Amino acid sequence: MSDVSLPDVAEDDLYGPDNLPYGVYTTDAAPDRRRIGVRYGSWVLDVGAAAAAADHPWAEVLSAPSLNPLLAAGRPAWREVRAAVRSWLTDAARREQLAADGLLLPLDASVTLHLPFEVADYVDFYASEHHASNLGRIFRPDSEPLTPNWKHMPIGYHGRAGTVVVSGTPVKRPSGQRKAPDAPVPDFGPSRRLDIEAEVGFVVGGATEPGTAVPQTALRDHVFGVCLLNDWSARDLQAWEYVPLGPFLGKSFTTSVSAWITPLDALDHARTEPPARSHELLPYLADGEGSGVEAAGLDLRITVRLNGEVISEPPFAAMYWTAAQQLAHMTVNGATLRPGDLFGSGTVSGPEVATRGCLLELTWAGRDPVELSTGKRTFLEDGDEVTLSAWAPGPNGTRIGLGEVTGRITPAA
Amino acid sequence: MSDVSLPDVAEDDLYGPDNLPYGVYTTDAAPDRRRIGVRYGSWVLDVGAAAAAADHPWAEVLSAPSLNPLLAAGRPAWREVRAAVRSWLTDAARREQLAADGLLLPLDASVTLHLPFEVADYVDFYASEHHASNLGRIFRPDSEPLTPNWKHMPIGYHGRAGTVVVSGTPVKRPSGQRKAPDAPVPDFGPSRRLDIEAEVGFVVGGATEPGTAVPQTALRDHVFGVCLLNDWSARDLQAWEYVPLGPFLGKSFTTSVSAWITPLDALDHARTEPPARSHELLPYLADGEGSGVEAAGLDLRITVRLNGEVISEPPFAAMYWTAAQQLAHMTVNGATLRPGDLFGSGTVSGPEVATRGCLLELTWAGRDPVELSTGKRTFLEDGDEVTLSAWAPGPNGTRIGLGEVTGRITPAA
Repeated sequence: MSDVSLPDVAEDDLYGPDNLPYGVYTTDAAPDRRRIGVRYGSWVLDVGAAAAAADHPWAEVLSAPSLNPLLAAGRPAWREVRAAVRSWLTDAARREQLAADGLLLPLDASVTLHLPFEVADYVDFYASEHHASNLGRIFRPDSEPLTPNWKHMPIGYHGRAGTVVVSGTPVKRPSGQRKAPDAPVPDFGPSRRLDIEAEVGFVVGGATEPGTAVPQTALRDHVFGVCLLNDWSARDLQAWEYVPLGPFLGKSFTTSVSAWITPLDALDHARTEPPARSHELLPYLADGEGSGVEAAGLDLRITVRLNGEVISEPPFAAMYWTAAQQLAHMTVNGATLRPGDLFGSGTVSGPEVATRGCLLELTWAGRDPVELSTGKRTFLEDGDEVTLSAWAPGPNGTRIGLGEVTGRITPAA
Repeated sequence: MSDVSLPDVAEDDLYGPDNLPYGVYTTDAAPDRRRIGVRYGSWVLDVGAAAAAADHPWAEVLSAPSLNPLLAAGRPAWREVRAAVRSWLTDAARREQLAADGLLLPLDASVTLHLPFEVADYVDFYASEHHASNLGRIFRPDSEPLTPNWKHMPIGYHGRAGTVVVSGTPVKRPSGQRKAPDAPVPDFGPSRRLDIEAEVGFVVGGATEPGTAVPQTALRDHVFGVCLLNDWSARDLQAWEYVPLGPFLGKSFTTSVSAWITPLDALDHARTEPPARSHELLPYLADGEGSGVEAAGLDLRITVRLNGEVISEPPFAAMYWTAAQQLAHMTVNGATLRPGDLFGSGTVSGPEVATRGCLLELTWAGRDPVELSTGKRTFLEDGDEVTLSAWAPGPNGTRIGLGEVTGRITPAA
């Protein structure tokens, strides 16, 4: 760790000059004034004020109370701002000046992080073959685990944008209709099968005009960055409601995202080939040889902690469908993108039990409880806290931190 | 019809003083300045300017470029504004003064109507038993038409808020994956089964705090008004994609809404009892005797025209689930409401063929074409124009017009 009394970072800091994630913060001194911050080690740069002081052309966009205007500005702006911020922060004299001017602040208890952007539309995918197969076995034991369409398209659905919250927001246990398979009718009450889904979220910037399909190769023109996402799920509500129109109340109560958005440009060293494709893909989704799409997977290493104990380490590199394919699919019908659109990868699960991204899979629907030092868990109990964190390979053996997303369950009543 | 040279309306006008729907318009003289308008016959009142001139306490909210601030202001504001506008417009001298001041304009070609509010979250329900049964028979011929949950809860899902457009916006035929039941793999191309869904939309105002369930009896505190909604649907895309997570690209390309939002307070004479319930409902959904919920159905008479010819007259009074039940269900898990949330009723279909609200049902998946004077239709062809219109009973035998929502299909390429 760097000495927080000086605005510097160690070479192995997860938030060094090759990361530079964006967030939105307030300080105790000005609790009503939301500002865009760039994280540098254990410091946060007031990037709007720094840009204004430097007479930077994007200073106005960076002085907004959310990331949306920067998202709307598009990739040329994202690159210019990133290069400028990097140049400021890697200049020790300038750093000290920024700290002296009060524009580079310690990330301490006087700083509060907020939801960094207003979510426009939120789409959630289902891109892990391991997760989709496991859920198929659990929810539809009499059918093939994967539906016939699964290998032909990234299956997704729209979620509730208005209930996306920032890391740290309490998660109230939802109530709803629950029906045991052998019960004649549903009853009503707090969810008894409250679960997590460890996901990666992609934050959309560059908008599109109606009728525009975005090719996979244009991913970087439209996706600004990456966050961690916990798609809290009430499995009992979901199981009873989801046929035929998909998940609704089982998901819509809360979705938590990390406070820091890591620019896609910070993840160049994490690019990797996705798994081999077992089915030939239609041209707009093809990403093999000759497709012009290169290494669209991402090697992100996720850790899931329940009450501080590691319960899973899902590997994002195992995801079958890439963000580029998800973006291409989501727009191939001409649907527009808006700044602030968010799409989730779907639960990240690897092939082994200890790499599964939700309790439903980890405990096989409650059959095999997770052992914690404080007791067993099948699904979440009131007071439980779940934290997802992640890192990605950076240049020269460094690591890029993806922050964390955490939430604690509060009682239904 | 009233004489448009005078700012007055006939007693049988669909937009008389008991209606007073809200929209957002620009004029050719000021094409960049969006204003809130209230429709009065064939006239539109610049309600922000009129309120400012009257020093009305809600003048600032009414001077916004969209309805969202008014939606956020809540029911007391809605009632005060409605009473004030009604008093202004039913005073002939004041009307003439408003017209003389340029604040009451003829609704002619110099006036352009826009999407009247920014859509926050868009939810679509599935509340007609006739529609759900017909779709079950068509999409799942080997199963019971209604899924086991259907009579226990209003089934719904989230749609794409960013592609909700105002009436008159062209609808580009979407492309996507299509797979015939006997084809081994999907192919890609323009939808061959482009359809409509005749629906009613409910526009949400009063927001809620996280964790708040809205009871049915609070409908009027949270729903500002009603619009017509055409949930354009690509049935071939939908049929292949929708298992297991619900409709996605088959719906997300465009949803059209009418330009005028009729206040719920204008529909008091349209309140009616919903159909008898065949299953006992959980307390939060119960609306029979002793529930305290009175006549939550709405007697709205919808007409569907294809290229000007009437092809269906769906009765909204036949809907099994009411808006009050949908609102209660949508929030029973604690999900928040935001100003600008929109929920659709689901396709309105009655028991007879000529009252079905989509071509899939009207033609029984293409088997029985609709006969037009210009030829037959199974699904929509390029250049086809579909218009939904509706009215509701008003006081003293009058009718309340719900405007119309129209769209013309443009080619995929």
